[in-house]
Amino acid sequence: MQAVTEYLLSRLAGLGIEHVFGVPGDYNLPMLDFVEDHPDLQWIGSANELNAAYAADGYARVKGLGALVTTYGVGELSALNGIAGAYAESVPVVHVVGAPPIEMQRWHAPVHHTFCDGDFDRFPRIAAQVTAAQANLTTENASDEIDRVVEVAVRSRKPVQIFVPRDVSVANVRARNKIFNIGTSKRADNGQLTAFRQHAETFLASATSVSLLVGHFVDRYGARKELRWIMESGVVWAAVLSMAKGVVDETDPNFVGLYAGSISDRTTREAVEEADVIITAGVLLADTPTGGFSHRLDPNRRIDLGVDDASIAGKTYEGVPLAEGLKAIAQVLHAHPASHATVFRRSSNGKPQSVDRPQPDACLTPDLFWKRLSRNLRPRDMLFADQGTAFYGALNIALPAGADLIGQAVWASIGYTLPATLGAMLADPSRRAVLVIGDGAAQTTIQELGTFIRLGLKPLIVILNNDGYTVERAIHRPEAAYHDIARWNWSSIPAAFGADDTVRFLRAQTNAELDRALQVAEIEQRLVFLEVEMEPQATPKFMDRLIDSMMKGANKSLDVRSERQAMP
Amino acid sequence: MQAVTEYLLSRLAGLGIEHVFGVPGDYNLPMLDFVEDHPDLQWIGSANELNAAYAADGYARVKGLGALVTTYGVGELSALNGIAGAYAESVPVVHVVGAPPIEMQRWHAPVHHTFCDGDFDRFPRIAAQVTAAQANLTTENASDEIDRVVEVAVRSRKPVQIFVPRDVSVANVRARNKIFNIGTSKRADNGQLTAFRQHAETFLASATSVSLLVGHFVDRYGARKELRWIMESGVVWAAVLSMAKGVVDETDPNFVGLYAGSISDRTTREAVEEADVIITAGVLLADTPTGGFSHRLDPNRRIDLGVDDASIAGKTYEGVPLAEGLKAIAQVLHAHPASHATVFRRSSNGKPQSVDRPQPDACLTPDLFWKRLSRNLRPRDMLFADQGTAFYGALNIALPAGADLIGQAVWASIGYTLPATLGAMLADPSRRAVLVIGDGAAQTTIQELGTFIRLGLKPLIVILNNDGYTVERAIHRPEAAYHDIARWNWSSIPAAFGADDTVRFLRAQTNAELDRALQVAEIEQRLVFLEVEMEPQATPKFMDRLIDSMMKGANKSLDVRSERQAMP
Repeated sequence: MQAVTEYLLSRLAGLGIEHVFGVPGDYNLPMLDFVEDHPDLQWIGSANELNAAYAADGYARVKGLGALVTTYGVGELSALNGIAGAYAESVPVVHVVGAPPIEMQRWHAPVHHTFCDGDFDRFPRIAAQVTAAQANLTTENASDEIDRVVEVAVRSRKPVQIFVPRDVSVANVRARNKIFNIGTSKRADNGQLTAFRQHAETFLASATSVSLLVGHFVDRYGARKELRWIMESGVVWAAVLSMAKGVVDETDPNFVGLYAGSISDRTTREAVEEADVIITAGVLLADTPTGGFSHRLDPNRRIDLGVDDASIAGKTYEGVPLAEGLKAIAQVLHAHPASHATVFRRSSNGKPQSVDRPQPDACLTPDLFWKRLSRNLRPRDMLFADQGTAFYGALNIALPAGADLIGQAVWASIGYTLPATLGAMLADPSRRAVLVIGDGAAQTTIQELGTFIRLGLKPLIVILNNDGYTVERAIHRPEAAYHDIARWNWSSIPAAFGADDTVRFLRAQTNAELDRALQVAEIEQRLVFLEVEMEPQATPKFMDRLIDSMMKGANKSLDVRSERQAMP
Repeated sequence: MQAVTEYLLSRLAGLGIEHVFGVPGDYNLPMLDFVEDHPDLQWIGSANELNAAYAADGYARVKGLGALVTTYGVGELSALNGIAGAYAESVPVVHVVGAPPIEMQRWHAPVHHTFCDGDFDRFPRIAAQVTAAQANLTTENASDEIDRVVEVAVRSRKPVQIFVPRDVSVANVRARNKIFNIGTSKRADNGQLTAFRQHAETFLASATSVSLLVGHFVDRYGARKELRWIMESGVVWAAVLSMAKGVVDETDPNFVGLYAGSISDRTTREAVEEADVIITAGVLLADTPTGGFSHRLDPNRRIDLGVDDASIAGKTYEGVPLAEGLKAIAQVLHAHPASHATVFRRSSNGKPQSVDRPQPDACLTPDLFWKRLSRNLRPRDMLFADQGTAFYGALNIALPAGADLIGQAVWASIGYTLPATLGAMLADPSRRAVLVIGDGAAQTTIQELGTFIRLGLKPLIVILNNDGYTVERAIHRPEAAYHDIARWNWSSIPAAFGADDTVRFLRAQTNAELDRALQVAEIEQRLVFLEVEMEPQATPKFMDRLIDSMMKGANKSLDVRSERQAMP
């Protein structure tokens, strides 16, 4: 026998989780005892629940699964936007909510952290909108329900929610010793897979150029190895969507850059769109990653590798999981490489461009900033870029091998990356973390800086201080007062959140100052907090193109109807 | 003709709203233009949406109605816990959400700030769980729907949510000039009201003592005037529940203190429970306000004045709104005052007790702190006390005439009061604001301090620094590490959030230091930020009693079933 919470934690630990994020509350306190007493788990308390949810999301993106514990009502709802973001961007987080004792619920008692209307189903109904599965534990169903929803999280790459009444959390259940072995993908249908491979072989046979457009599901469904195998064939040109930047090794000679429809660099767009065969792998063709639905990917020349099925020029093969589909394509390409194109005729796109010689005292622009920062990135770095000028600037740089870009291209919740960096650093302490975030975004979640300091983590944190919501200025009426934010003294922020000599504060306003600051950061052994000052209306060129394209899209009839896609 | 947003804003301004809270986002930017251009409205940008929702709630508690504008998905869900709190505590906030253009929704387009699954109904489904009405505006329905849901907010004293697609927000509707006249109460049924009054007259005729237990609906449904009329009769002893502290003038000789079931001061409990007739007015008998359902209010001796109906010893009269019910009771009591008790035989409860003479250098406890602070409160002050040691300490002091206590007794979301203070100060700049909040709670919403500084507001803000979540320590395993939080340097906090010489920082660790600090605060013309240091396990006595009573309640069969009540 073991307690329900012990059983739950053993399942999470068995799947590789080592840290549990959250905030204590009276309904979850007994659960936290089990976390604290667990030999393989560490409790990471956050300053608030939204931050904790973001941290669990960042953790899950690196570790494959994350866990969050909050209290009923106030806690879970504070975390909701973080869980919704995990849902939108396919990140598996197990959200455990401490709930009122089960007898209280059965009596419809008007207890705190509820609406005192006796309706305890409101909260599961909310959770059902932003998670792939929900469970209300009882002592009778606990082990079955825990196994069920945790499996949904792992398989669907989506968050799930588990309500644990306070009394149930400490009740006993029979322990199960069977190994909890969950694959992330459905099993392949071998007949369909063979048919698909044969069709692909024919379809690719006469192609003299093949492009591969990579989406984030390749990462989420653990298919990076199969992707690398395709790249090793040397006969496809690969581009990434913004949600997948870093999934293709950008030092590969056949990496052709970021594809974003009509706003892509011209050579990237032509390489992708004009190939004889266009292979899409795990893509989500949402508005921002496609420059406002401006992608032009001829359906008749396409092989689409979806999460659970694959199709060729519109003919669909069910039961072909993404990794299997990629493997089949790799087999075909390795068997008959000669007929396809070899090394991409590179222009400058997606690569460091000719070294500029700007005035050392010239004010920084986002593009100048990113050019400089990108020279300081190292292989395997985790680069976090928050929505706005940070994220859209980051899309334009070349990443070193093994480096990843983490941000929210589609859910796009400002402030997400600051706690997400915390989570990711705990998930893999061997990788360096660099966070770039605008001042408006940083204001939403800044208190989590205290947790970095408390835990002794040492990222490079760059605040792009452009005096407000610059991305919104770029979209609409740049001078409007509602784009302004409170002016903080960023140099005092680290000390306020608990830093003594544990944080190095730096500031840069010009190219020369930034170069110096990055040199200092390079050798600094502490957390570096770098404020980079920019003009309120200085935007990355890529963002200008995106906004221009999306605003046009918003004002015309779109081709969305013909581009409808099956969403996983 | 006028734009949909203009129409909406004219309705809000017509109901007395002067400030609109929120955070900009691309889907709501065109709406913000109308706010900025409106002669009678001011935009108050917050650091994040949860804080904005809390601010709108604080505003509504003082002004009668609040308004919040967020963006789709990320913004509205970040605000959700704030809106849910308004729902739980019956505070009318109109939550306006900028949504994707209506054509995008009709095409089920995978756009940012959604789950890219084409299901745009997820967000209204979530809103339906925490608001009393929801509207999805189109150019056809806009004016009808705006009128409908705003009326629900005003009448039900609950939040409502309005989704405004970006294109709809600027589309034209026919303006309506009719005055938007909404009462907060349903109309009385005159027959029922007369029957109720006659029954009350008989019921009260032979009573030699009458107690009146006041709940927060008396405030929410605008019935303070009728309550005062009852008090002027001089023949009832009035107590308040925690949600209604401040609603009865605590300098009234017949005010008998805070009633919280078995954990009330003995004289208060006896005065309420042992009266010949017990009148409850607008009460919500939830767990925390009743000391864990420990109230003993004999149903056979009771007159219950509900929001929409009244009952006497179980016989219900429908169609008797709270204010009318109070007025009827006042009429009866004024007509036949002689038969009832007169001035309450006061003991020490609910009043400043004999002046203590503690060691000047002794460490502060919550009760010593509150005793000192209460001497500095002035008539009409707005006192904000956050969940935990702050709120439960505040319940034990006597408020000056016209002063209010604002906190969340039932929803109990930590951090709420910091932004709520901001909102309330804008709602009534003529009243002084004093905020008391624990360090753990303050960490959740601290960034809103920047908005106080930006707007030049000058509250007295007291941080009770007890090194973690003291209320949770009191509930469960005080030494557990999960109660700990990051240690901030509170003295650096104001400067970090933008204060130059605009904020006075003070610190107190002993009785003498606190007395000095409060003297300084008294004459200071700036925002005062006072850190009061306490031991991690120092708790107000009232909180100890509450936790003890609730934990006992959680472990025994409760009388909840027999105490079920109709929730408004």
